[in-house]
Amino acid sequence: MLYSIVKPNNYQDSLRLMRLSNLVADTEGINRVSIMMGTPMNKDILRNAGLTGTTVDEAKPTDLLILADVVSAEVGESLVSTVDAFLSNQASMSGRSRLPTARSLERALSLAGDANLAIVSIPGEYVAAEVERLLDHDLHVFIFSDNVSIDDEVTLKRKARERGLLVMGPDCGTGSIGGLPLAFTNAVHPGNIGLAGASGTGLQEVMAQIDGLGGGVSHAIGLGGRDLGTRVGASTCLRALRALDGDASTDVIVLISKPPAARVRDDVIGVAERLSKPVVAILLGERPPAPVHGNVHYAHTLDEAARIGVELAGTRAARSVALRPAQQWVKGLYTGGTLAVEAAMLLRESLGIPQGEEHDGGYLLRSGGHEVIDLGDDAYTRGRPHPMIDPSIRNERLAAVFDDPRNAVLLLDVVLGYGSDPDPAGALAPRLAKELAALRAAGRDLAVVASVCGTENDPQSLSTQTLALEQAGVTVMPSNAAAVRHALRILRRQRAPEPPANGANDTNDADDADEPVRRLLAQPPRVINIGLRGFAETLFERGAHVVHYDWRPAAGGDRKLQALIDALR
Amino acid sequence: MLYSIVKPNNYQDSLRLMRLSNLVADTEGINRVSIMMGTPMNKDILRNAGLTGTTVDEAKPTDLLILADVVSAEVGESLVSTVDAFLSNQASMSGRSRLPTARSLERALSLAGDANLAIVSIPGEYVAAEVERLLDHDLHVFIFSDNVSIDDEVTLKRKARERGLLVMGPDCGTGSIGGLPLAFTNAVHPGNIGLAGASGTGLQEVMAQIDGLGGGVSHAIGLGGRDLGTRVGASTCLRALRALDGDASTDVIVLISKPPAARVRDDVIGVAERLSKPVVAILLGERPPAPVHGNVHYAHTLDEAARIGVELAGTRAARSVALRPAQQWVKGLYTGGTLAVEAAMLLRESLGIPQGEEHDGGYLLRSGGHEVIDLGDDAYTRGRPHPMIDPSIRNERLAAVFDDPRNAVLLLDVVLGYGSDPDPAGALAPRLAKELAALRAAGRDLAVVASVCGTENDPQSLSTQTLALEQAGVTVMPSNAAAVRHALRILRRQRAPEPPANGANDTNDADDADEPVRRLLAQPPRVINIGLRGFAETLFERGAHVVHYDWRPAAGGDRKLQALIDALR
Repeated sequence: MLYSIVKPNNYQDSLRLMRLSNLVADTEGINRVSIMMGTPMNKDILRNAGLTGTTVDEAKPTDLLILADVVSAEVGESLVSTVDAFLSNQASMSGRSRLPTARSLERALSLAGDANLAIVSIPGEYVAAEVERLLDHDLHVFIFSDNVSIDDEVTLKRKARERGLLVMGPDCGTGSIGGLPLAFTNAVHPGNIGLAGASGTGLQEVMAQIDGLGGGVSHAIGLGGRDLGTRVGASTCLRALRALDGDASTDVIVLISKPPAARVRDDVIGVAERLSKPVVAILLGERPPAPVHGNVHYAHTLDEAARIGVELAGTRAARSVALRPAQQWVKGLYTGGTLAVEAAMLLRESLGIPQGEEHDGGYLLRSGGHEVIDLGDDAYTRGRPHPMIDPSIRNERLAAVFDDPRNAVLLLDVVLGYGSDPDPAGALAPRLAKELAALRAAGRDLAVVASVCGTENDPQSLSTQTLALEQAGVTVMPSNAAAVRHALRILRRQRAPEPPANGANDTNDADDADEPVRRLLAQPPRVINIGLRGFAETLFERGAHVVHYDWRPAAGGDRKLQALIDALR
Repeated sequence: MLYSIVKPNNYQDSLRLMRLSNLVADTEGINRVSIMMGTPMNKDILRNAGLTGTTVDEAKPTDLLILADVVSAEVGESLVSTVDAFLSNQASMSGRSRLPTARSLERALSLAGDANLAIVSIPGEYVAAEVERLLDHDLHVFIFSDNVSIDDEVTLKRKARERGLLVMGPDCGTGSIGGLPLAFTNAVHPGNIGLAGASGTGLQEVMAQIDGLGGGVSHAIGLGGRDLGTRVGASTCLRALRALDGDASTDVIVLISKPPAARVRDDVIGVAERLSKPVVAILLGERPPAPVHGNVHYAHTLDEAARIGVELAGTRAARSVALRPAQQWVKGLYTGGTLAVEAAMLLRESLGIPQGEEHDGGYLLRSGGHEVIDLGDDAYTRGRPHPMIDPSIRNERLAAVFDDPRNAVLLLDVVLGYGSDPDPAGALAPRLAKELAALRAAGRDLAVVASVCGTENDPQSLSTQTLALEQAGVTVMPSNAAAVRHALRILRRQRAPEPPANGANDTNDADDADEPVRRLLAQPPRVINIGLRGFAETLFERGAHVVHYDWRPAAGGDRKLQALIDALR
């Protein structure tokens, strides 16, 4: 038998509706149950399913509708009691919470003081009007709601652009601004990687992978799945990229999207290439044109994007090296033969150096000023110990590398383990520090890039050796391949200098219109939450400044009346 | 002034010579100092440097030679005192050590009882004769020494092959057998990845990176830099690969080498492709023919080799799934839209499925039985919550996947974070366990592969959710891309079944001759160390069964006399 219940004027958000559905779904004797608000869209769904009648027809958007196929009237009565108990329990839980709550936007704004961000998770059909009002109040808006028309999205984003505001979404499942989790977001460590992503789980996966790799996130800006479409034209994306470039806590930017239309792609990559910071771009499904182009690094999978981002982020924090344009060469002095082979291979591939003749004297690469030497070659070890236990072989060669004003990068390996030098960094670091100090006293500089091959349990300890090198001014990368890739990044910068690194103001498209977004990123936002109460509770528990606006459809959900009210405001 | 000292009959190994050199090198008043044994090779070096005279000419290989350019006789005298103090200190340290030590091989063998591995680090010119004797005693040999002729290497390895023995090296800088560090080796966690590498730091880098990624090492077998050359013909490499394949503690094999000559490459890859376990091959400098061919996965850099190895190792430990040949399809049921897009992309690329029309119903891939569905698509969420908070949407679709006997892999995502289901694995795992149990009761099976998008600090906790899935029989991979790659490995295996997994005996080249090597790997070896005392001390400190043979050139270093003694044995 069909059992229908209407709870008039009893608005519940979609999460509560879901919890209530789950609560009653497995009850013995209930064959099927639908619990929803009486919105026009829901009523259409019910009518299409053949469920018509006065109950459905007369329900208002603020009325709670329960339709159940039950085996007996007793089961129906029991369902009514369950629903009543759930609703009164929810009401009492909300009443106990200390979350500041308002019943109108005006009241919420007044309670929040200087709010600058709104999170919107009300049913899609009400979003446009509500977000218009929020933009009028100069709030940036994060739209979790879906079922917002693309026309509305274009209109809202145009308005936002005119006012210098950011509209994230609609259908924006995740975000993080200044460390505050917005909607569905993972608890990641704070850090220097800023993300902009068209959709939810792409951002979540990259954030979670960054966290797993030991990196951290500054901001994650959701764009909405249609932002990079031709209609919206990457409106939010372009603003997000420029804002992250100007954001002091962000060193590396990761952009996640499906491949955009050609024209939009040109706009987005054009802006990305003019930024002062490295950008990792993953355009899911597109074969990257090249691994790296200028400051833009292309990834093929989400975990690869995270890996490249963490690698870049680790070195952005390192001291910046002031190289002159004439400094173009890399010199690798290796104690480990295979590490030298790997370095020579990666340099050859990237610099387009053909495989040459085998060189004497341990040279694995010797071309156009670039050199990689294996100091463990017989040429150096005949009659004396291997450089992995006798640091003097390499130390003797350091001065010549620092002396040559054409050298840009000195590439080194430090090999730990049983049997190796008990303190290889201790033998190397003071020499490097001395050479670097002398060079800088002479107004010059050199990038010294190394990797430490070893583990924490090695007698010398990976972290201790790394620290000694870093304190001497060495950039230490997590693997030899990563060190070589870093050296190549420096060489690329030397060959094609990046734009001045003083922020987005120097890029063509940037103007003062981006200033409000940069201010949004500069400190934890002050939030008004409209819709799902849980989003506000999460923020409140974390000590964020948040006011919950306990929204419900105005005027009993009559859209014409609502439009009239909006027009009269 | 030149100052020369001879300490007759005072053999010191190369490590001690280096320590002594370092000790006196920076002394005020000493311009230059050479400290070495009076071997013919060293005497040649001195003569070539113009240092001739009675002292040099008459020195024997067991005589310690010190030549110094000093500013005064006082400095020279002081040098003599320093040297004497060092030598007596070394002698007393050795005397205090509890390391079992013998003065002859026979005594060492008797002390060691049933030794099965010798580590050799004596000067290269003495290696061939010494290793011949060791092979005669049925010892596997790890040759650290360099300066061994290739003729000697070929002879020794031929002899070893005939006797079923393994010769690692010469010039083998690193190794690890049954967790025992040989020569220059990093302290890595034990695990299920077995390595074979032609040279030292290639092995070390991959071992250290594996450790850094949370993986572990079963064995690391050094081959020697010339093993994969045409002369030696990969003699040790082939035996090492087969032995690792038959080793119970090894689940994944990593092979590291420079690109071998074509003929040798064919032999090595031919054997690798017939093994029962996955092999990660890095042939440094060679562009991989394909990312994967059969069971062989190609890496381009050492850190990538480690990454692939750890990924493979993580899943080898998982339960093995007994699929039938007819099971050929992958079905992906995703709650995360971008994760679904990534899965569809990787499956398309690998299975050669062209980009199709956009499908309705959230299908991102629907071709030849393969499907990837985004359950967050509007088709599923209109009028009900997103599957990330309402597990019923996916749960309803599980049975159909298990029912279809053509399905091989069910691919899933589990998304954590604020706002998500408080226990998504808890909603999914019992259903999966039930379906798997029912399927197996019917004599069938299905591979269920998932990734958990989240962090340890998420409300649901990455490790808790992972464990719940694993206990239900799900193989959980560290990222969505890794999960898809694992699904693809299963599909590949289904399309071209791997050889029976009962060890190397089934491969063409294997025979009982490999048995002694498999025995070597089966438990921690019992070691005789010949040469650098430090190698034995390291093992002794770790509780290994080791005897140090305090080798010195026989008969005062007279090679002719030595040859005569060898002939008379």
